[in-house]
This record gives sequence, C-alpha cells and structure tokens, in this order.
Amino acid sequence: MKYNIPIQVPVGVSNRHIHLSQEDVDTLFGAGYQLSEMKPLCQPGQFACKEVLTVAGVKGVLSNVRVLGPTRKQTQVEISRTDSFTLGVQPPVRDSGDLKDTPGCVLIGPKGSVILKEGVILACRHLHIHSKDAEALAIKDKERITVSFGGERSVIFQNVLARVGDAMALEFHLDTDEANACMIKSGDVAYLIAKEESGTEVKPILEVENPVKVGKTE
Amino acid sequence: MKYNIPIQVPVGVSNRHIHLSQEDVDTLFGAGYQLSEMKPLCQPGQFACKEVLTVAGVKGVLSNVRVLGPTRKQTQVEISRTDSFTLGVQPPVRDSGDLKDTPGCVLIGPKGSVILKEGVILACRHLHIHSKDAEALAIKDKERITVSFGGERSVIFQNVLARVGDAMALEFHLDTDEANACMIKSGDVAYLIAKEESGTEVKPILEVENPVKVGKTE
Repeated sequence: MKYNIPIQVPVGVSNRHIHLSQEDVDTLFGAGYQLSEMKPLCQPGQFACKEVLTVAGVKGVLSNVRVLGPTRKQTQVEISRTDSFTLGVQPPVRDSGDLKDTPGCVLIGPKGSVILKEGVILACRHLHIHSKDAEALAIKDKERITVSFGGERSVIFQNVLARVGDAMALEFHLDTDEANACMIKSGDVAYLIAKEESGTEVKPILEVENPVKVGKTE
Repeated sequence: MKYNIPIQVPVGVSNRHIHLSQEDVDTLFGAGYQLSEMKPLCQPGQFACKEVLTVAGVKGVLSNVRVLGPTRKQTQVEISRTDSFTLGVQPPVRDSGDLKDTPGCVLIGPKGSVILKEGVILACRHLHIHSKDAEALAIKDKERITVSFGGERSVIFQNVLARVGDAMALEFHLDTDEANACMIKSGDVAYLIAKEESGTEVKPILEVENPVKVGKTE
C-alpha cells in the first residue's frame, strides 16, 4: 500500500553500542555499580551512559563503545557490518532482543571482562512510531514499511521494521553503514512511502524467472 | 523509463584503494619503480597491485590500502564514508577522475611519502556496461539508472551512474558502506530496474510541498 503523500520521519543514526544486563554491569564495573546517564535519547526512558567498553573479537577490537541504559534482561551488542569485519564475527540482521543463535564476543571493562556466548547483532533498521500515529497510517507493530531518502546517494529502504508502542517517539533508526551508504545523518528527514504486505517471510523485491541477460560483448 | 523485465547485473564491491600517477609511484616506491600486478580486475586492463600504502589524515590512518594499476594521470584515493571519519577528511561523492576541490591526504610508502593536495573521493556508485549492451537498453554514457538488490536488507539504489564504453565489462560497482548496508557482496546479482530521466541536476526522489506530519502524541 503506497501512501498518497510521503510521510516525513526524522532520522536517528545508531552508532555501535551495548545494552547491558545488571549482572554484566556488576562484572564489568564492580558489584552493585549503577550506570550513569550522560544524555537522554529520543526514545522515552532511554539514555546514553558515560560508560564505554572495549569489544573484542578474534580479529580485532573496537574501543570506547558506548553503553546505553537502562539495563536489560540480556546483554546485547549492536554493531555495523563494517565493525563485524573488524571483530571477525558474523552477526545476523536481527530485531532488538532476538538473540537466539547469534555470535558472542568479549567485553572488557575497568573492573572485569565478560565472555558473551551470544548477543552480537546487526540491528534491523526500524521505525519507532507511537500507537496513535501508527493507527492513523494503518501500520501494525512488526509490519514492514518502505522508507526513502533523497540526495546524491538516493535510496529506497525496503523491509523496514515498524515498532509501534505508546512509549515510542517517531524516529527512523539505521546503523552507520546504512547511513553512510546514503549520506544520511541524525536529524535528517526521510520519507515513509509505503506499507509492505505483511508476512513473516522476507522476500526479495524482484524475483525474475527469465531475466534478460546481457554481458561481455566481444 | 522502467524496464519491463529487470536486467541481471553482477556486483563488484570496491574496498578502499588508490590509483597512482607514475610521479607518485617514483616518490613512494623509488625512481622508475613499476607497479606489479597481483591479479586482474573484472574491467579489462585494470589490475590489483601487490603494492599497498598507508593513508593518513588528521584523525587517523588506514593501513595496507591496495594500489590499483595501471598508473593514471593523477593520483586518486577512493575510500568509504566510514573510512573518511577514521581519517578525518570530508570527501564528496564523485565520479572517478573528477577531483577538483576534493580534499587531500598523506600517502606513506616504503621509499617516501606524498602530501596530496586533492584526490580523496567517495566513489559514485556506477554500472560499467559495454556499448552494445547499453545500446540495447537505450542507456547513454553518464546517464543515471536505478538498481535494486533484494534480501533482508533490500534496497533500491537511485542515481547510479552509467559508464558506457567498448572496454567495459558489465558490473555494478559500489563501496563497502553501500555493500554492507544491503548485505551485498562481490559476485552477487543485482537488478537494473529503471533508467532515470537524464539531467545534470541530482534531484531528491520525492519533493513534497505539504507533507503529512506525524509526531509525538501526548
């Protein structure tokens, strides 16, 4: 379903970051340690912490990776695919919290280290949208939508996850690879242009039985 | 103009690399030094060299950056936007060879260093296509086309530059940020889906006079 008029959505670019369980906070920063807020994020109740960690993999490390608060049930490390080559891990594209069968890494803090068995993901790009806005646009939680961004590296992002809730502020989240691919930055405006057909299977946008083949012409 | 049937095009992902002038080869590797071929590239006559260099900027360095041959009239350094943050330079998106008013960097080789005054670019994604194929698809050199890639990070790339010539082998070139944004890798297949209206001005795909605004709902 295409919208007749594209809907403006503010952009938030997510740099690599870490969500920690309190248990891992205790190990990394000391027993009973409380994360300290540096600045609030756009999503209500979420904040960037003063704390940073080193993330290590078999091929390399990422230093000064920001911790985001508040603490969560399970530790989750969100990196870009570019970062994944630096670390030497192969994380899948996942929605936040869906950590089954994801790779791990090592987190190194001032008071200790944690060997994560799982929790490293490439975050699935998504649109945070308040329930009332979503209702007006006929979008349901977890549906997929299409978002475009103009300019010289103009792209149309398909398979954008809608995250609908009463505690959501309108914001299109993508990672640094996706942002750099289209020269987008936090605060820019993208356009919601279509709601995709719902379904659990992720489909390529074009499936061609007998595509025209062109190639080297001698 | 949309094609009735999408055209399969093989993908080539360009990692950061350097094209050198013979003058700079002399400075970096020694007077009269000749670049040595490591392996041929898909484009006829082009090759990856055994030689690598360190690229340095105000904020950091990139090590082991591959040199591509043969030599060119002017040295050109092609990096990703992610790399640009590492170096601390702000290169524009440019077609190869269009280096006016681009930033410079420092190249460090085994026999000497070169302070480039200009030559650092983000390469404009492009489709190499042989003249005969281009004729069949009604594409002229430097026209812009639209290419799509499916999968879970499905995207449609607009503003893709067509580079038409008798020495071109069909290949869609993008950089590592663009590739990582859609989980594409060299050897994958993308689809040419449309030829864009020609014109020198790069336009956003959507310009909305009075877009619907949605936002935080209290």
